[in-house]
Amino acid sequence: MIDSAATVTALEQRLLKAEDELALRNLMVRYGLAVDCADIAAALACHTNDAVYIVSSPKLGRDDCDSNDLKMEGHQAIADMLNSEMHQSLVPNCAHTVGPYTIEINGDTARATGYSRLYHRETDDFKLMRVSINEWQFVRHEKSWLISCRESRVVGESEAQTLLLNAAFSH
Amino acid sequence: MIDSAATVTALEQRLLKAEDELALRNLMVRYGLAVDCADIAAALACHTNDAVYIVSSPKLGRDDCDSNDLKMEGHQAIADMLNSEMHQSLVPNCAHTVGPYTIEINGDTARATGYSRLYHRETDDFKLMRVSINEWQFVRHEKSWLISCRESRVVGESEAQTLLLNAAFSH
Amino acid sequence: MIDSAATVTALEQRLLKAEDELALRNLMVRYGLAVDCADIAAALACHTNDAVYIVSSPKLGRDDCDSNDLKMEGHQAIADMLNSEMHQSLVPNCAHTVGPYTIEINGDTARATGYSRLYHRETDDFKLMRVSINEWQFVRHEKSWLISCRESRVVGESEAQTLLLNAAFSH
Repeated sequence: MIDSAATVTALEQRLLKAEDELALRNLMVRYGLAVDCADIAAALACHTNDAVYIVSSPKLGRDDCDSNDLKMEGHQAIADMLNSEMHQSLVPNCAHTVGPYTIEINGDTARATGYSRLYHRETDDFKLMRVSINEWQFVRHEKSWLISCRESRVVGESEAQTLLLNAAFSH
Repeated sequence: MIDSAATVTALEQRLLKAEDELALRNLMVRYGLAVDCADIAAALACHTNDAVYIVSSPKLGRDDCDSNDLKMEGHQAIADMLNSEMHQSLVPNCAHTVGPYTIEINGDTARATGYSRLYHRETDDFKLMRVSINEWQFVRHEKSWLISCRESRVVGESEAQTLLLNAAFSH
Repeated sequence: MIDSAATVTALEQRLLKAEDELALRNLMVRYGLAVDCADIAAALACHTNDAVYIVSSPKLGRDDCDSNDLKMEGHQAIADMLNSEMHQSLVPNCAHTVGPYTIEINGDTARATGYSRLYHRETDDFKLMRVSINEWQFVRHEKSWLISCRESRVVGESEAQTLLLNAAFSH
């Protein structure tokens, strides 16, 4: 019986890891859905209270683009960005699509690395405003997962290359 | 022994849910593969007999675009659309790519909400004809899943915002 | 006890298949991450030693495009391509994004069929250089998976249609 119980426990741990990966895939997408309909409460609910969110060149593709990083720390800072004219001017004509990405889970923390694209509808055309490399960090929270950190950098930046190198090596 | 049997049964139910999610991810993509090679039988096999499929502004990006919804009910109506000049004129130079999306499973029914993009090759360039918000409804059918309803709306429509709000809140 | 052991063994086999599918999804993406940061060792580590990689019209979207297939066999040939001026001239301004795809697993081999897009950053704009239909073949290697063959064909090619038809029918 001991062997059998151990077998079932091992299976349960493996199953939990698969469930975790599926939950993380849904979590990353849910944030995108939330910001595209300006559901700020739903967007914040994807993050830990002290989540860090870094976006390089946040105004890329606009006339007033500058190349400084936007760094947000905590729910209020993320809410402020989502309430800003910069974000609100895109809604409802934007699509924040994430993926593909690799996911690595280590117990109660996890990391995803991959791509995202921001589209903007302009009458009957769709402009690809941004293609980014992203690194997400996650923590397990009760029975679900939350984003604790996200760094989003435009393709071509040297820091974007660093994010890619970190993920490509780790397998 | 009762505890052990209950444990295994609980594991089996959790595993089924993970398998369901993977099957649903494959199902949504298979429909895209089928329509891009005009394999109408394969496309219909992804749907229940009485599936409903709503596409807003189905001719977006074309000269004769109008903004009425196209509503199809049942296999014959979906086949008629796939056999129409509107669809056939795109093949083989089209790519119907779905994702990313969130998936929610409730027993024998499920819902996915997310994005899709339609690309059209024009000689050596690729035109992004459409970026949509989609809601898929699924039902379990024997050992697999079928699409019972899909609503596809262009980014920016007010009804697209409703689909996003429905999904962003539900977690 | 025999029934119980059989139940657990059956669960374990089903769980392995779900784990395999998640691993394959990560593997395909990891290759893209690796080539976008020119981490050639990581890119090769995704492939069997004798992997075959076929890319039609590899210079699509460039001035010196020709329509011949590029066929690589083995790590050295793939490394040569990644070290070539053709690839290196894109780095770090490229994003090789794969998906969506369907995955079919048969014991120790597997197949995925789906889309990929190559983006190139040009100052503050992003050019979609290529939209492809891909078929990946995989083999199980110790506790992980490797790519044994990948065929990547531009949307619109008749051979791309063949790849789609192969996948659309198989369910």
